[in-house]
Amino acid sequence: MHQYNQGDLLKKINLPQDIKKLNKEQLPRLCNQVREYIIEVLAENPGHLGSSLGTVELSVALLYVFDVPKDSLIWDVGHQAYAHKVLTGRKDVFSTIRQFGGISGFPKRSESPYDCFGTGHSSTSISAALGMAIADKIKGENNQHIAVIGDGAMTGGMAFEALNHAGTSDANMLVILNDNGISIDNKVGALGEYFTSITASPIYNHIKNRIWNLLGGNTSSYRKPKGIFRRLLFALKSFFAGKGNFFETLKIRYFGPINGNDVILLVKTFEDIKRIKGKKVLHIVTKKGKGLKEAEENPITYHAPGLFNPKTGERENNHNKEEEFTKFQDVFGQTLVELAQINENIVGITPAMLTGSSLNMMMDVFPERTFDVGIAEQHAVTFSAAMASKGFIPYCNIYSSFMQRAYDQIIHDVALQKLPVVLCLDRAGLVGEDGATHHGIFDLASLRIVPNLVIFAPKDEKELRNILYTAQKGITLPLVVRYPRGKGRIKDWKEEFKEIEIGRGETIKQGKDIAILSLGTMINNAMDACLSLSKKNIEIGIYNMRFLKPLDTLLLDEVFSKYNDIITLEDGVKKGGFGSAIEEYAIEKGYKNNIHIMGIEDSFIEQGSIKELQKLCKIDSESIVEKVEEIIKKK
Amino acid sequence: MHQYNQGDLLKKINLPQDIKKLNKEQLPRLCNQVREYIIEVLAENPGHLGSSLGTVELSVALLYVFDVPKDSLIWDVGHQAYAHKVLTGRKDVFSTIRQFGGISGFPKRSESPYDCFGTGHSSTSISAALGMAIADKIKGENNQHIAVIGDGAMTGGMAFEALNHAGTSDANMLVILNDNGISIDNKVGALGEYFTSITASPIYNHIKNRIWNLLGGNTSSYRKPKGIFRRLLFALKSFFAGKGNFFETLKIRYFGPINGNDVILLVKTFEDIKRIKGKKVLHIVTKKGKGLKEAEENPITYHAPGLFNPKTGERENNHNKEEEFTKFQDVFGQTLVELAQINENIVGITPAMLTGSSLNMMMDVFPERTFDVGIAEQHAVTFSAAMASKGFIPYCNIYSSFMQRAYDQIIHDVALQKLPVVLCLDRAGLVGEDGATHHGIFDLASLRIVPNLVIFAPKDEKELRNILYTAQKGITLPLVVRYPRGKGRIKDWKEEFKEIEIGRGETIKQGKDIAILSLGTMINNAMDACLSLSKKNIEIGIYNMRFLKPLDTLLLDEVFSKYNDIITLEDGVKKGGFGSAIEEYAIEKGYKNNIHIMGIEDSFIEQGSIKELQKLCKIDSESIVEKVEEIIKKK
Repeated sequence: MHQYNQGDLLKKINLPQDIKKLNKEQLPRLCNQVREYIIEVLAENPGHLGSSLGTVELSVALLYVFDVPKDSLIWDVGHQAYAHKVLTGRKDVFSTIRQFGGISGFPKRSESPYDCFGTGHSSTSISAALGMAIADKIKGENNQHIAVIGDGAMTGGMAFEALNHAGTSDANMLVILNDNGISIDNKVGALGEYFTSITASPIYNHIKNRIWNLLGGNTSSYRKPKGIFRRLLFALKSFFAGKGNFFETLKIRYFGPINGNDVILLVKTFEDIKRIKGKKVLHIVTKKGKGLKEAEENPITYHAPGLFNPKTGERENNHNKEEEFTKFQDVFGQTLVELAQINENIVGITPAMLTGSSLNMMMDVFPERTFDVGIAEQHAVTFSAAMASKGFIPYCNIYSSFMQRAYDQIIHDVALQKLPVVLCLDRAGLVGEDGATHHGIFDLASLRIVPNLVIFAPKDEKELRNILYTAQKGITLPLVVRYPRGKGRIKDWKEEFKEIEIGRGETIKQGKDIAILSLGTMINNAMDACLSLSKKNIEIGIYNMRFLKPLDTLLLDEVFSKYNDIITLEDGVKKGGFGSAIEEYAIEKGYKNNIHIMGIEDSFIEQGSIKELQKLCKIDSESIVEKVEEIIKKK
Repeated sequence: MHQYNQGDLLKKINLPQDIKKLNKEQLPRLCNQVREYIIEVLAENPGHLGSSLGTVELSVALLYVFDVPKDSLIWDVGHQAYAHKVLTGRKDVFSTIRQFGGISGFPKRSESPYDCFGTGHSSTSISAALGMAIADKIKGENNQHIAVIGDGAMTGGMAFEALNHAGTSDANMLVILNDNGISIDNKVGALGEYFTSITASPIYNHIKNRIWNLLGGNTSSYRKPKGIFRRLLFALKSFFAGKGNFFETLKIRYFGPINGNDVILLVKTFEDIKRIKGKKVLHIVTKKGKGLKEAEENPITYHAPGLFNPKTGERENNHNKEEEFTKFQDVFGQTLVELAQINENIVGITPAMLTGSSLNMMMDVFPERTFDVGIAEQHAVTFSAAMASKGFIPYCNIYSSFMQRAYDQIIHDVALQKLPVVLCLDRAGLVGEDGATHHGIFDLASLRIVPNLVIFAPKDEKELRNILYTAQKGITLPLVVRYPRGKGRIKDWKEEFKEIEIGRGETIKQGKDIAILSLGTMINNAMDACLSLSKKNIEIGIYNMRFLKPLDTLLLDEVFSKYNDIITLEDGVKKGGFGSAIEEYAIEKGYKNNIHIMGIEDSFIEQGSIKELQKLCKIDSESIVEKVEEIIKKK
């Protein structure tokens, strides 16, 4: 493992107790060294750069003032917690972040006692902190419980649910609203505008500056007002800020906003605020990408920039030979723009995955028909259903694992009402480095049990393109289209549109004795395996089922009558998934063929490259070859 | 069908256009007649009485002023929409409400064009109204879009997600906050307290009364101020109310509160407010159970009172011979109190199903360890996970179909982190009269695919009692316990606690050739079928698997080696469910027995009695008998 340079202070820090030994005045230097370390490591080991650079001072100040993990510290959408990882025992393995066998890109309870609660999906931190705070209260303990939540994550409904509950509780909870004026994309929604209006208000800022100075402000010559006086000042500030009422209507005391990149100020503020009992919100303003000019100026690009030059910030062109291929998300984005041009009823909706889903392409051309509703999966789906009820054709794009948030809305608002929403699940299957929280491996099994849904997985760019085309030709049922992260293998995928017949699979290759049934890009693995096997004179059949629902029963009848052994292959959980659907059909029809399910076993899968993980899960082409040879051997 | 008395005005009303023919002054009388009609019908045909009595004036006024369904009208948690149903073409079939083949207890698109959006689960209405409003805006139309949402439903996260989105939109949307100071149970959370503080504030009320009078108030001698002046008054009122900022921080104009049981005032207000473009909230205060003294005084009991005397309001004792049996929810409630007495680490959590789940029993005895977090399924589950992380044993009670709201939290916060939360899913399986939105038929299939979960379904009261006991003895994985609505069959279920071995099923009866595998209370149907078959000298085996996960593979091996034909029986969807799990195991082990799945086909199931629906779904004992005879015949 390559060792990275560490500044003199950082060298001495392994655990939070080491930070506590420093003088307050040394903290800014420590922050700089942490920031440099993160930049240097991430330049060579891609990760979530922007958010983590913004929270260096916050991480240092929290660990300096509070007694974590006795005090609970929960980082919402944990990719802002890299400095936290560096400072809590994981500095020397930090370069393994997000790699196979390395540390996770998100807080993870099983990785460290300092990771109080796992956070990969957004908006969970307040619920978690409140649960811990109330647990402590019952035990008669008096620890602090801190949730750090971004302004983007605050729009998620469950954050509001937790605030509403917190408002009537007297537990010790501090919510730190980390406002960087941007979530992954530009922030959307009224709450974001509201936060901006607070921080931009000249009246507010006038008062803020005066009180800030009274509180010690940015000056190093800090005269500390007496405790109660300082608390009064806090309250005064909050009162004058006035608009803080959003939290105060929910009976939560509001403080701030303060500069969240000023570590001395943060430390002083935390020292004060920890003496205030009950629940409270501290609004801090941080700069995403802080310390790396390019990242500060291009927060969306530098959210997760890939490889870059640590000095200049310049991003490496890491396309190489894959350059000629297109990401599936871009196939979606480009195709949707084409379709929106010919069909004015098409609308595009996403809950805060505008760039990630490439729906920004449609936003650029048709802003009035494109909606980024913020981190709000539940709303996004029901909102789409309502638009469908008015005759529009909504393409609602959500990453597969985040779709889990809208499961009830898919059942209750879309499927039950047979509203023809097109649910586009990007990042389906194994997603790689984001790991266990982000793999889209439950979609096939959880959605196929819902009546009225049509479920399709394209094997390549062309099928994705054509199903998107088909969707707007007049489907009468909701359609799920799930496709993976990353690129396909076809250079010239943009050809004339062809309609895909609903419920019709295809024969890719006839074979003998053994057939593989699959769908989606796992067809590639099947074809690779087939190639290897052909070299050994083993000819297996390959069938692209395309639709998980409705199943192509004609094709299945053909396969079951022709082959003795059937292998099903999917990049989702085996339990209840595609293979299970094939089994159900076989048993219903009384077929006694041997069926072999290849898919993801009943456990959560950690991070790694998709290739590594496919191998781990035994769904890569080598594993298919082995499985086929094993079947032949047994005969 | 029994015909019920209709007042002279109501007699003339079939559709909204008939209401529009009335003079404003006739509306109060119409309201009385609608109210009497609802009381009379529901006295003999049980339904959701309380909420619907509160919204009679609102229903009349909305249909009088607006042009539904051109203007969209969406009733959140549709059981407040009975008057709406009576007034929109369903008066004469109103007595069939919630019955098999009758009209639904909730708005339903396929039932009437006046039901703009189906609503059974809570907090969806703002998303739906906003979707329709924006759809209209794109089309260049200028209709109104109205969501009527209760104060309880406002705590649901997706309502907030929708408000946040609405705040930055300029679509025409009116949210009517129907504040009856209570959701199903007493309202919880800061938002509820906030609404109360607004309506109770003396300063506010002083201003309100003066402005109210200026606006026409309660007097019949209504002098209409000029348009702009009235609008100014509205704004002034809103300004003075001050605390309206909760909505105003989200950039939504706030009006009210006004008396929502004054139909003349409502009509005047709607006539004004419909001229105001953009999004706005009107806060109205209504009386739940209005017009029936007992219902007004006991809103929880009279939420859905069953049979009652329409004159006196007195509830009929409809227990009869079932009296001696106990509801499963009460077995849960009573047992949890017993356990909480011996284990101080037990906590109880529910998202607004306190009485419905009988967790109120624990609340009475251990209020400091019992939490009703409001309509907030997502928060409830993650909050429970956090308490488990601190060593508590949370029993989180959610109805099965509402659990769908917390699917991601179960995966991401509970299962992935292996936190031993006890997820108690009440109302699992077919729930009867609440119909399609409320059947708990997706839980088995959707949860068994989640790693680390243990899933149990008790066959009777004793098994429920004992699994709850087992759960607090030190389980290391999250445990799902799903049990049905209604009563069991055992009189003396409260016996000494016995631990249940995780993953161990039981042989109920040995048989020949054919075995039934089942779990949960469907075991009763199997046993009834068995009795009938015995009389015909057919002896089948019955096996109670108890655990959907982990499966008792020893027992399965025994069954598969002993019987030729295996029937699986469940009150959940066939796709991916219990039967599918058995099939997966059989195929994995190479068993070639015939497997017959009995469960719910791939479609949504409407309302009816549980008995009627079991027959419809062919999972009643007669259908089992038929299936067995069919299998025998084939041999």
